[in-house]
Amino acid sequence: MLECKVHAALDLRVTDVPAPRPGPGEVLLRLGAAGICGSDMHYYFHGRVGNFVVREPLTPGHEASATVAALGEGVTRVAVGDRVAVNPSAPCGRCPGCREGRENLCTNMRFLGSASVFPHVQGMFRELFVMPESQCVPVRTDVSMQEIAMSEPLSVALHSANRAGPLLGRRVLVTGSGTIGCMMVLAARLAGAAHVAITDVVDAPLAVARGVGADVAVRSDALGGAALADAVGVPDVAFEVSGAPSALISCIETVRRGGIVVQVGTLPAEGMQLPANQIMARELDVRGSFRFGNVFGHAVDAIATRRVDVRPVISPSQPLGEAARAIELARDKTRSMKVHLVPA
Amino acid sequence: MLECKVHAALDLRVTDVPAPRPGPGEVLLRLGAAGICGSDMHYYFHGRVGNFVVREPLTPGHEASATVAALGEGVTRVAVGDRVAVNPSAPCGRCPGCREGRENLCTNMRFLGSASVFPHVQGMFRELFVMPESQCVPVRTDVSMQEIAMSEPLSVALHSANRAGPLLGRRVLVTGSGTIGCMMVLAARLAGAAHVAITDVVDAPLAVARGVGADVAVRSDALGGAALADAVGVPDVAFEVSGAPSALISCIETVRRGGIVVQVGTLPAEGMQLPANQIMARELDVRGSFRFGNVFGHAVDAIATRRVDVRPVISPSQPLGEAARAIELARDKTRSMKVHLVPA
Amino acid sequence: MLECKVHAALDLRVTDVPAPRPGPGEVLLRLGAAGICGSDMHYYFHGRVGNFVVREPLTPGHEASATVAALGEGVTRVAVGDRVAVNPSAPCGRCPGCREGRENLCTNMRFLGSASVFPHVQGMFRELFVMPESQCVPVRTDVSMQEIAMSEPLSVALHSANRAGPLLGRRVLVTGSGTIGCMMVLAARLAGAAHVAITDVVDAPLAVARGVGADVAVRSDALGGAALADAVGVPDVAFEVSGAPSALISCIETVRRGGIVVQVGTLPAEGMQLPANQIMARELDVRGSFRFGNVFGHAVDAIATRRVDVRPVISPSQPLGEAARAIELARDKTRSMKVHLVPA
Amino acid sequence: MLECKVHAALDLRVTDVPAPRPGPGEVLLRLGAAGICGSDMHYYFHGRVGNFVVREPLTPGHEASATVAALGEGVTRVAVGDRVAVNPSAPCGRCPGCREGRENLCTNMRFLGSASVFPHVQGMFRELFVMPESQCVPVRTDVSMQEIAMSEPLSVALHSANRAGPLLGRRVLVTGSGTIGCMMVLAARLAGAAHVAITDVVDAPLAVARGVGADVAVRSDALGGAALADAVGVPDVAFEVSGAPSALISCIETVRRGGIVVQVGTLPAEGMQLPANQIMARELDVRGSFRFGNVFGHAVDAIATRRVDVRPVISPSQPLGEAARAIELARDKTRSMKVHLVPA
Repeated sequence: MLECKVHAALDLRVTDVPAPRPGPGEVLLRLGAAGICGSDMHYYFHGRVGNFVVREPLTPGHEASATVAALGEGVTRVAVGDRVAVNPSAPCGRCPGCREGRENLCTNMRFLGSASVFPHVQGMFRELFVMPESQCVPVRTDVSMQEIAMSEPLSVALHSANRAGPLLGRRVLVTGSGTIGCMMVLAARLAGAAHVAITDVVDAPLAVARGVGADVAVRSDALGGAALADAVGVPDVAFEVSGAPSALISCIETVRRGGIVVQVGTLPAEGMQLPANQIMARELDVRGSFRFGNVFGHAVDAIATRRVDVRPVISPSQPLGEAARAIELARDKTRSMKVHLVPA
Repeated sequence: MLECKVHAALDLRVTDVPAPRPGPGEVLLRLGAAGICGSDMHYYFHGRVGNFVVREPLTPGHEASATVAALGEGVTRVAVGDRVAVNPSAPCGRCPGCREGRENLCTNMRFLGSASVFPHVQGMFRELFVMPESQCVPVRTDVSMQEIAMSEPLSVALHSANRAGPLLGRRVLVTGSGTIGCMMVLAARLAGAAHVAITDVVDAPLAVARGVGADVAVRSDALGGAALADAVGVPDVAFEVSGAPSALISCIETVRRGGIVVQVGTLPAEGMQLPANQIMARELDVRGSFRFGNVFGHAVDAIATRRVDVRPVISPSQPLGEAARAIELARDKTRSMKVHLVPA
Repeated sequence: MLECKVHAALDLRVTDVPAPRPGPGEVLLRLGAAGICGSDMHYYFHGRVGNFVVREPLTPGHEASATVAALGEGVTRVAVGDRVAVNPSAPCGRCPGCREGRENLCTNMRFLGSASVFPHVQGMFRELFVMPESQCVPVRTDVSMQEIAMSEPLSVALHSANRAGPLLGRRVLVTGSGTIGCMMVLAARLAGAAHVAITDVVDAPLAVARGVGADVAVRSDALGGAALADAVGVPDVAFEVSGAPSALISCIETVRRGGIVVQVGTLPAEGMQLPANQIMARELDVRGSFRFGNVFGHAVDAIATRRVDVRPVISPSQPLGEAARAIELARDKTRSMKVHLVPA
Repeated sequence: MLECKVHAALDLRVTDVPAPRPGPGEVLLRLGAAGICGSDMHYYFHGRVGNFVVREPLTPGHEASATVAALGEGVTRVAVGDRVAVNPSAPCGRCPGCREGRENLCTNMRFLGSASVFPHVQGMFRELFVMPESQCVPVRTDVSMQEIAMSEPLSVALHSANRAGPLLGRRVLVTGSGTIGCMMVLAARLAGAAHVAITDVVDAPLAVARGVGADVAVRSDALGGAALADAVGVPDVAFEVSGAPSALISCIETVRRGGIVVQVGTLPAEGMQLPANQIMARELDVRGSFRFGNVFGHAVDAIATRRVDVRPVISPSQPLGEAARAIELARDKTRSMKVHLVPA
């Protein structure tokens, strides 16, 4: 079977290796589709994501759907042939974060395709892989493997919505219109937001955002502050998804007094200049949102029932054997939204 | 009667003017004690507080106790001779902020001793003044006029505690050990915090903070980051009271993953460099706290019953006629904590 | 102009009276459509609603749309010819309930068409009436007067949804499939519920509930407890809308451990037998929901944009001059859902 | 070593058995003091607690302190000779309840001294027993073994306080003045309640409640409804601890509009007559509170530091060998509050 490994920055190798075997409570999965995420790009282009450095060959990939190929001993909840969404998050259930119901803050987290621990937790850019049964959520409806693989990015957006509190009747701004920005539009709409505006500095993804339900989708770089405020209104809640400092400043300055800003995107590690006094003077809440908590099952259900229709966000899939080229493509937001790797 | 008016920066005049008369629903109050707050100092030293500029002579003063001297028509809840705490906050009850129960965000707020609207709302640095009955809270116990006047700064701290959510069993850090910092210690203790640490860059107020219940009170400028963390532990909640950017950075870096930072102090209007990515990566909540909501009655009760004992924070009072000198004194944190003006 | 007045039980008189005139800040409204609600029925059939007894002739009606016919002095936000939804709720903005942001708990509430205070607050079952501008919400889209009038019952459901907390991804049960039950389905769907089941003891309204988005709509009287649980699943949140004690028992027994029951319907005043120990042993939350808080504007917006489509719930309208017959019709759930009175 | 076993109702045998040995990650503990709780009494007097029936000999006891006597392999956080509080709650960390941070709702809970599962989970009414290290919380201060053993009932009260939400500045009523009622007074005081009233139908425990900080402690059976309301005021939050239906009714009728009732005591399993309509008409919250969540460490800390002083609630201890007689004594609220068993 084919397996991708990042050995170092720009050194991604696809090799033919023997298939693994499932142990007790585990299943063998055949890849359906694996989405290429920003962190996968970072591992490929830079050999690291922030403080997580590739110290041994790492298979990226944490957004995947698959088909059950074989069962380990004692597996009862899935059967051979089932299509599943794979939850890449494996919290410990014992640490303080887990015990207060915030499993994404688990101090012993094992997250697929990540160099956050050593040995690394190998991901799903490979044809066959073994997973604990507990991380597999079966899908019984007729949606595509690519749609199922969107359960992970949708989970990120649902978690961010939960961090914001009830969105029912709220006016929402999203800054950044890539895959997560579009998932955020879908999540805000699902949660009953009364109005959803989105901004970006590129046209192509704004069109996609309109297609998934944004009421307003505008270029933030083409508008001054006042014109932007005119275009997007005064949001109750702003989700900063782009990771651009200027976008966070814009969220802080645009939300209403007493409003909420949720930081979803990865900001520069070196810090940034912020009008922090507004947080006090206008009594704002600025809340971080990191990965996702216990919402994966909900994301899978929303996609399986198409209450959330992610299809406009899916770009043509690429063969696993050409992973490096696909990652280059995925980085170019004028040419693609979410790109998936599929077995040849 | 004597009345203080700030005409411009460093131009404070105390003059003898006729006493006012209460209208329907109003009472005439004789000043007990009026605390000198940071914003009073700003009006005196700079002729402004941030964007609020003195455009006509302004009587400062929004932290006062008084004795009822006469009643206007229809007043029923207070009697002549009653000692009262004066609530300086008069929200409209109709705007969106008021309707969601956040009266401190009232868009039509009339706050005593403030240049936020024009004509300005005159404050309580005067011997006699008229107030709506609804802003007077009687005190029936034998605490001092100075203690009663502390109801306002205690309200600020109680509001900040409410913004943090339940503190029961939490580890708390307070940065800045002036009057509000010490009120914050008292509020956190009252709310059941398990551990309260406080920092400052001056020794004198740290001793006061110890006196009102801080478990740990340390100089932050004398310790490196790691040593500071050793001294204060890993707080669940940090209250930034000093207004110093370095203190906010320290709060963001010190609170636990998933922790809460409440910004209480006034930060520089020009913005500041912040490690904002930590807000996302460690899923923090950074919450502003502005003035106070519907907690004034609680503050008065806590002081009147001495469940909260504010006496260690009170410095010797000064005569109203020497207001300018008293304001100078109040600014010097090595020589004073809360200084009150009293009728000669 | 025609005006309905309930003089006593079963004594409703429609008479021709002079039109009123708007004072400062008020507008004269011409009735569009006025929904007949359960409390209107109670006033007509019993001369009372619980403790609220008709002590002088009372014009019922608190769910209405109208057209602005004339403006009083100083009115700026609506113009003659505007179509408006009328908010029947006028809280004081000063009492403890208002100050904590729960205006429906206002102790000085003036609610249209209600005998809760004396003199009674006259309602909108009349051709022309005067309202403060502040209670009129203009509608600029092309929805019907009957739809606009549904803003009030939708507000009741949105408030109940807010009482339940976030419904995003939750499994919901609604017991009682009349107008409010169907509004509850619409509100739960809008708020992102993953699954909505509804029960009733009559078939006709269940079909309507299916039409507005219920996943499951079943006769509760035809099923035993276990069969019911099979049909509706294990809800996270149950909304009891019917006012039937058996339905509340069923909600308490059916919701999951740690689940939430919201009581929306009016239960018998004399009390009822309940398995209250389950509230402790399964750590449930049982929450009352009374009228509605600050959600009317959101309800109007949801209807005006048809993000919430209330049309399946609207039965043919009846002339104001035949109000008594219309009320009889409205009571018969096999023949009607929401019936509106319209000017002849 | 001595070990108590309940074989059936009124059949409690104390026998001499061999000491157990700790396995990996476990410690051998020598009993310090073990509190006798209501459920222990139920097992002894009735052979059951509600649906939990004694099906094999059961050692009761879930409120204990102990000294570490020996360590199993790999134990690192406690040492021989350490005094510890034993957390009787062992949730799974994987089920839906655990994953939302409500470990007391764990579907796989193993709670010490309980017949809720079969084989039963044996408790701590014995001289020596083995525990996982993770359930042992060391105490380094000089409080008594009986005080340390109060960590469990204090946890119950702290959990109930958490269920109520912030108590800072709230007026609180507690119905039932036994051990848990007094713990509730302590917890409410710790959380900053402004006023705490308590009721009972016996005098002796009311005196204890006064001793731990109740502002008002009155006989509810000696007062009519109105007189009771005069005595206790209008609480924001009521904690029903007694398990008496009349007390729950009284809580529902006494709390303010929009108030909160927390049901802590075990109500009759057969249900009860309740004025449930008030829940809707006055928009109350009635919340169950079952055992305790992740607060045990906080309870231990509060006792170890004596921020919570439980000594007034502790009655003289009794020898383990006379467990049956001690349980009889513990049941008589005129003669005892919390009775502990200690090794002879």
